[in-house]
Amino acid sequence: MALIVQKYGGTSVGSPERIRNVAQRVAKFKAQGHQIVVVVSAMSGETNRLIALAKEIQAKPDPRELDVMVSTGEQVTIALLSMALMEMGLKAKSYTGAQVRVLTDSAFTKARILAIDEEKMRADLDAGFVVVVAGFQGVDGDGNITTLGRGGSDTTGVALAAALKADECQIYTDVDGVYTTDPRIEPKAKRLKSITFEEMLEMASLGSKVLQIRSVEFAGKYKVKLRVLSSFEEEGEGTLITFEEESKMEQPIISGIAFNRDEAKITVRGVPDKPGIAYQILGPVADANIEVDMIIQNVGVEGTTDFSFTVHKNDFEKAIGILKGVQGHLEAKDVLGDDRIAKVSVVGVGMRSHVGVASQMFRTLAEEGINIQMISTSEIKISVVIDEKYLELAVRVLHKAFHLEQEV
Amino acid sequence: MALIVQKYGGTSVGSPERIRNVAQRVAKFKAQGHQIVVVVSAMSGETNRLIALAKEIQAKPDPRELDVMVSTGEQVTIALLSMALMEMGLKAKSYTGAQVRVLTDSAFTKARILAIDEEKMRADLDAGFVVVVAGFQGVDGDGNITTLGRGGSDTTGVALAAALKADECQIYTDVDGVYTTDPRIEPKAKRLKSITFEEMLEMASLGSKVLQIRSVEFAGKYKVKLRVLSSFEEEGEGTLITFEEESKMEQPIISGIAFNRDEAKITVRGVPDKPGIAYQILGPVADANIEVDMIIQNVGVEGTTDFSFTVHKNDFEKAIGILKGVQGHLEAKDVLGDDRIAKVSVVGVGMRSHVGVASQMFRTLAEEGINIQMISTSEIKISVVIDEKYLELAVRVLHKAFHLEQEV
Repeated sequence: MALIVQKYGGTSVGSPERIRNVAQRVAKFKAQGHQIVVVVSAMSGETNRLIALAKEIQAKPDPRELDVMVSTGEQVTIALLSMALMEMGLKAKSYTGAQVRVLTDSAFTKARILAIDEEKMRADLDAGFVVVVAGFQGVDGDGNITTLGRGGSDTTGVALAAALKADECQIYTDVDGVYTTDPRIEPKAKRLKSITFEEMLEMASLGSKVLQIRSVEFAGKYKVKLRVLSSFEEEGEGTLITFEEESKMEQPIISGIAFNRDEAKITVRGVPDKPGIAYQILGPVADANIEVDMIIQNVGVEGTTDFSFTVHKNDFEKAIGILKGVQGHLEAKDVLGDDRIAKVSVVGVGMRSHVGVASQMFRTLAEEGINIQMISTSEIKISVVIDEKYLELAVRVLHKAFHLEQEV
Repeated sequence: MALIVQKYGGTSVGSPERIRNVAQRVAKFKAQGHQIVVVVSAMSGETNRLIALAKEIQAKPDPRELDVMVSTGEQVTIALLSMALMEMGLKAKSYTGAQVRVLTDSAFTKARILAIDEEKMRADLDAGFVVVVAGFQGVDGDGNITTLGRGGSDTTGVALAAALKADECQIYTDVDGVYTTDPRIEPKAKRLKSITFEEMLEMASLGSKVLQIRSVEFAGKYKVKLRVLSSFEEEGEGTLITFEEESKMEQPIISGIAFNRDEAKITVRGVPDKPGIAYQILGPVADANIEVDMIIQNVGVEGTTDFSFTVHKNDFEKAIGILKGVQGHLEAKDVLGDDRIAKVSVVGVGMRSHVGVASQMFRTLAEEGINIQMISTSEIKISVVIDEKYLELAVRVLHKAFHLEQEV
């Protein structure tokens, strides 16, 4: 008997029929003698419907109130799934984030989980219940409803698995695993049987959209065995996320091509090239709770330097406004922005021991006439920012250049 | 400066536009220096949408899970109204029933309020916030979400007014007060400037649908000054619900004609006419948390008697099932039911000191050929059960017979 946490996304619970399918899958695992905690998202489309409704009232909805509203999406799904499980003769019980309780900080719309009280869930599991928990949401120390931000249901799943010391956390999604890149852009993309945590971290953060980055961080930190599976296929082992030490001997150089079109770039031009300038620029941005992704500072020329970074497109306007506000104080020549960009990355643990990956990547893009606007590298990935109109082309040519269409 | 609790029903918050109108009205009171707590229902249609969705999964939805789902309706409205208030430059903050906290018993879908913690609301009011609270919902001692049943938002409003010792509780609805009967059935119906608590209690319980019965009970118990107003008219004093001692000198005999088509009648025929039989019949019904309205036991004949009562149509099938189950134990000849009935009542404090009201009522119905199936009386009302097809006719002829079309 194992304790399994299963997470189903919005598409998997998008209709009463699909909710019944999820219930059937859960029942199958329960029949095998496992204890099951299910984490669900809002029915697909529901979160967007609620946000649109809020925007009819307030162009920029108050974050606290937006969380009160948006959290109702999962609250509906947990009840429906619990009913569907009961209809199959199982004992089931739903919990909102506040009821569990998933304690978070107070950063509305992008809260972080601080602690989880697993006592109630444990008692219910021992009493034979399937426990159904609302993903994406929590409660702060003052009892305010919070949400974890888009994709936060994955994080809820992994965090519950960590708190309950579950044997496995299964993320069911509309794809059957992690691919070398998005098959909608490159039909020759292949499913990876396993991928290391580090690679997955890069793949998720770079926008392969299979798992939310924080869920992977959580899984790594608490050593949660994480598996990505399709909720629409009966069989299939999905992709297992492995710790590096247990990864296979013959590591391919590159595991996949990730991309992200949700970012915008901001450049602060001609700031004095002196200690503390990075903090002076990013401090106010961080204070506004805006997450910054790539950060690039060029070598200074004539005492001044240019500073560039990327933020989520939703935060673009706000970040520009903040920087325009402090431009005088920074003694910056200009604050420029562009939200028509895309980021493309090659990811692979194997590139550590191989030279030439970067040059191969840059040459491939150059051959297609794709201009590189920004470059950022880590041990296991190389990311470039390009004009968003070249995104699909870049993904396809890189997938081919690194021979990812071959069996892995 | 007064502390006012305002309650707005589903129609009053049925669209973003209407929510803005509510916000404007609240802002007007706030500008006059009052402290305002607003209680809102779900947007009209939302509760029914959610129940229909639940029924796609479970024909008879699990009550605990149904409450988890249905309570999301008001949760959306509190957020939207708070946003609308902020958009007008006011400070506003929303609370779900669980957050306030509105402590209830655990009778899911028909819970009763046990206590309200007014501390947070008081602190917010003192800090200049408009406090927006979800009606209709609460939380039990174990942290489960509960709902108070249909119309429960009125009860929330009055209960909050009582807990906060508010100066007035204003119930905004789609009518501008309490009428002598439903104007949709009798266009000559007149608005009452005031009505006593006792009459209101009878009017509400008998289905005039302006206020939920429990809210009136609460108001009477805690001496809450209650006013019914239209949310669609700028001016107007609505109808004030008075305590009897302060009611006007010249009491009209009859205040209004109430009716209810939501009930069904059940008759247990030929049970032994012995002590304890009423309890043996109604005990199992009460245990199933089914509310019983009229109860009539005829005089026994030859050692047996017939026992009749009415329940909500939603509980009809369940109640019949329960009684069929105990029919043998009761030694009853038969259990019969009819859900095609309506109840019509004449209500008035004045009838206490006037004879002939009952005979006037029965004669009027007889003249129209309307058969009376059951009769039940109290100090200030007389109710009859008739075939539901005669409902409108009965209301109109009684309204005329008691001269209610005249100015009051």
